[in-house]
Amino acid sequence: MGVVYTAASMSLDGYIAGPDEQGFAHLFSWYANGPQQLPTANPEVSFHMSEASAAHFRELADRTGALVVGRRQFDLTGGWGGQHPLGVPVVVLTHRLPDEWPRAEAPFVFRSGHIESALAQAKALAGRRAVGVSAGSVARQVLNARLLDEVWIELVPVLLGGGTPYLSELSRPPVLLEGPIAIAAGHGVTHLRYRVRRA
Amino acid sequence: MGVVYTAASMSLDGYIAGPDEQGFAHLFSWYANGPQQLPTANPEVSFHMSEASAAHFRELADRTGALVVGRRQFDLTGGWGGQHPLGVPVVVLTHRLPDEWPRAEAPFVFRSGHIESALAQAKALAGRRAVGVSAGSVARQVLNARLLDEVWIELVPVLLGGGTPYLSELSRPPVLLEGPIAIAAGHGVTHLRYRVRRA
Repeated sequence: MGVVYTAASMSLDGYIAGPDEQGFAHLFSWYANGPQQLPTANPEVSFHMSEASAAHFRELADRTGALVVGRRQFDLTGGWGGQHPLGVPVVVLTHRLPDEWPRAEAPFVFRSGHIESALAQAKALAGRRAVGVSAGSVARQVLNARLLDEVWIELVPVLLGGGTPYLSELSRPPVLLEGPIAIAAGHGVTHLRYRVRRA
Repeated sequence: MGVVYTAASMSLDGYIAGPDEQGFAHLFSWYANGPQQLPTANPEVSFHMSEASAAHFRELADRTGALVVGRRQFDLTGGWGGQHPLGVPVVVLTHRLPDEWPRAEAPFVFRSGHIESALAQAKALAGRRAVGVSAGSVARQVLNARLLDEVWIELVPVLLGGGTPYLSELSRPPVLLEGPIAIAAGHGVTHLRYRVRRA
């Protein structure tokens, strides 16, 4: 069975979004600050990264078979225009269906209910590949349910001063991790990968 | 003139102390989890680190000529028994003199007043070497006064879930940094060094 990971660009002070949903230009600058062009599954999205970041991103993409995201991220990105850049099915946790969704051509599934059942559906969709869960409230639920295997941090050299923490409201702190089991130095980002230690 | 830096062991969720002043056993485990014995200026304190951490620590020690710390850190450590492990003079920011201090044999100076004057005194004591300022409120004051040159983060793979943030209450967020200008992988810690970008 594939691992369950969460991955996000995070500021040095631990935020994945700044105050009032600002700060993304800083957090995501590494997607567009290098020479390596990286097409994605979404024809309207391509990246230009440093070589180290491109290699890291390709590895993440190769490993991933499905995603679980929250409604907030789905709305912030406009549902990625119907195709997530990783080109995999997406399970969206939400209590109300968004307008004009689902779409026949877009591999998005909408679920209310427990994180466990959403994750089980994503695992079935992913087969032997990994399931990525979005940072913030979804990752927190998965971590608190002891179902998170890995934490990937794209550490960005900015202090945002507030906003949305990456992993907060832990039900059983402290949570110990192992690693980093991988480090890569991109341009304007350090890619770090940790394994959640099972007690 | 030497640089002004702050350095601290920080959890992955951005805390330099956990809730209720807990978590130090995790944050400081890298000082004692390796084969390299490292004597310090304080005969009662010696460290046992990984080789990478020892090299990192020696570099930090070699660079540093004086420290500025807050009263909270001074109290938490019991004034380091009168001798900071780095063996340099320490300027303590406080509004009231601690009992039984100052001591003739201990290179500690107690100051109330503005961070600027405390920092100027520390710079005079440090000569051409760097001044280290303690993380938390002192580092925040120095950063907000635009007097901080570098941020050193000893990133520890634990989520504490709350506590004291490393750098918070910024007067002018976002604060951009450059780097990491150095990365070293210790055991149970990743040493990262950033330069504060001047606007």
